[in-house]
Amino acid sequence: MSRTLILGGGGMVGQKLAHRLGPDADVTLFDIGFPADCAPGHQRPGNLADPATARQLASERFDVIFHLAAIVSGEAETDFEKGWAVNMMAMWHLLEALKAEHLASDRTYVPRLVFTSSIAVFGGPYPDRIGDEFLSAPQTSYGAQKSVCEVMLSDFSRKGFVDGLSLRLPTICVRPGKPNAAASSFFSGIIREPLNGQQAILPVADTVRHWHASPRSAARFLMHAATLDTELLQNRRALNLPGFSCTVAEQIEALRRIAGQQAVDLIQYQPDSTIMKIVDGWPRNFDPQRAIALGFKAETSFDDIIKIYIEDDLPSSPVG
Amino acid sequence: MSRTLILGGGGMVGQKLAHRLGPDADVTLFDIGFPADCAPGHQRPGNLADPATARQLASERFDVIFHLAAIVSGEAETDFEKGWAVNMMAMWHLLEALKAEHLASDRTYVPRLVFTSSIAVFGGPYPDRIGDEFLSAPQTSYGAQKSVCEVMLSDFSRKGFVDGLSLRLPTICVRPGKPNAAASSFFSGIIREPLNGQQAILPVADTVRHWHASPRSAARFLMHAATLDTELLQNRRALNLPGFSCTVAEQIEALRRIAGQQAVDLIQYQPDSTIMKIVDGWPRNFDPQRAIALGFKAETSFDDIIKIYIEDDLPSSPVG
Repeated sequence: MSRTLILGGGGMVGQKLAHRLGPDADVTLFDIGFPADCAPGHQRPGNLADPATARQLASERFDVIFHLAAIVSGEAETDFEKGWAVNMMAMWHLLEALKAEHLASDRTYVPRLVFTSSIAVFGGPYPDRIGDEFLSAPQTSYGAQKSVCEVMLSDFSRKGFVDGLSLRLPTICVRPGKPNAAASSFFSGIIREPLNGQQAILPVADTVRHWHASPRSAARFLMHAATLDTELLQNRRALNLPGFSCTVAEQIEALRRIAGQQAVDLIQYQPDSTIMKIVDGWPRNFDPQRAIALGFKAETSFDDIIKIYIEDDLPSSPVG
Repeated sequence: MSRTLILGGGGMVGQKLAHRLGPDADVTLFDIGFPADCAPGHQRPGNLADPATARQLASERFDVIFHLAAIVSGEAETDFEKGWAVNMMAMWHLLEALKAEHLASDRTYVPRLVFTSSIAVFGGPYPDRIGDEFLSAPQTSYGAQKSVCEVMLSDFSRKGFVDGLSLRLPTICVRPGKPNAAASSFFSGIIREPLNGQQAILPVADTVRHWHASPRSAARFLMHAATLDTELLQNRRALNLPGFSCTVAEQIEALRRIAGQQAVDLIQYQPDSTIMKIVDGWPRNFDPQRAIALGFKAETSFDDIIKIYIEDDLPSSPVG
């Protein structure tokens, strides 16, 4: 049975993945901390920014490594040094440590390394739908760090030290739990809060279009990437993943269909020019032909995205 | 008068640039070594891979820094560690050192930083002409290192620590001097050696198409980039530069027009499958609309490229 390491295993996507791998899998969760109701797996607290940590983890020669650990985009923008240290240099140290194990193993150890990149590697102006050959031109430090990691992972893979791929995840929606400081938080909040009988703030116009996939899809993407035949990637190891593109108005219509007008009435429009400006720079739609041909699948309606939240994460009984 | 630093100032392009800046300019040439007939400027020998060197150079607060220093593609491919150390980490240390000076100057010091990237940031399959929005998907360590430097430079620039841009140079042709170990060496060799009355080896079919600009254009690109209004780049700070696309057969026809059949007769076709395979992965043609709109200019015929070699570099009197 393959031995799996999830870097960032205490985070939302890491937890979804660990749940999906199940209690019988040999999974190690590495993170600075873990939730109280942690998913199954060996909990290993630590800080990946320390090169000695990367060497220690590499020495355990996991078969599959999911690298989900990151400073979120808002913090990477305000704390430039920390963002580059955690989001870029930690990847460098990890790749160097895995290369050392590869060489020490007489080139027999070649771990699968699945890295969660982001649509933040893109910057406008955009075409109506971003194709698989569109340039990476990040306009945030977070996006720049993800872009650099993609290129490093690709070159270490091309040389045979690791067998990696980078998944450019859509915005994950509906995120369970509390709102966070991310500018994208409202995309989940305007669905999650009303479904929990709470008011939600909409800080942008409902004409804003964005690119979504559910947490369940995120976990499925990662599991699919863990066993994909990477020969098929032909050395283009960063993939735009499938998602569902819709406007905020379409999100709200889906909420109305599923939970009724009383849920929609809990959304308050409260324009925030800072958030509007940030969101204005984000991708709106993709044409991810390569990932679809490689078997990656996401939701095909926002109704499905809401239903998945209700099935997987709604704490109380569904509304409506 | 602006104070200028040329990192890699001892190399071919650095020397061309220093000559063009002229003896009255305040130029410092930094490199591990310098040619005997060195261009005008203060020679500063040293190794940029040392972070202390980057800090020392940054502390001198040059107005304009040209960063041309690199391990060439062949060596970066065979010596993986050295390539990443010199071509990537040295840029990181330089950017960190310049950021520290920026902050120490109360944010008044913002040097122009012109970085020579390369068409090696691209990887096939290619469209007939590579547009300005085509993805970077390097298939060599050299290309990967250049790509990473572009992204880092862009983010440090977006934050206002430096004012940088990356120039993706075409293959520079006709290179003066001796053949080198680069797989691209023959593109110059089949012109330069016959013009000097010597035999040249052609290791690929004459149907191979490639993207060229003269050393004179390279120096002009750099000078244009030093004073360009970078606001016009709208945070896409890596530029595909203009060049001239032609096949090897068209190169040879131009040689025939300029130097006669006796020059062409000095070219020997001697297929080399290793070189063919490498060259097969290279870009062939571009549509560099942005750079042209920004005022970058290159040759529009291979005849002109040959004439520039004869004017600027041919040691003896021209043939033919």
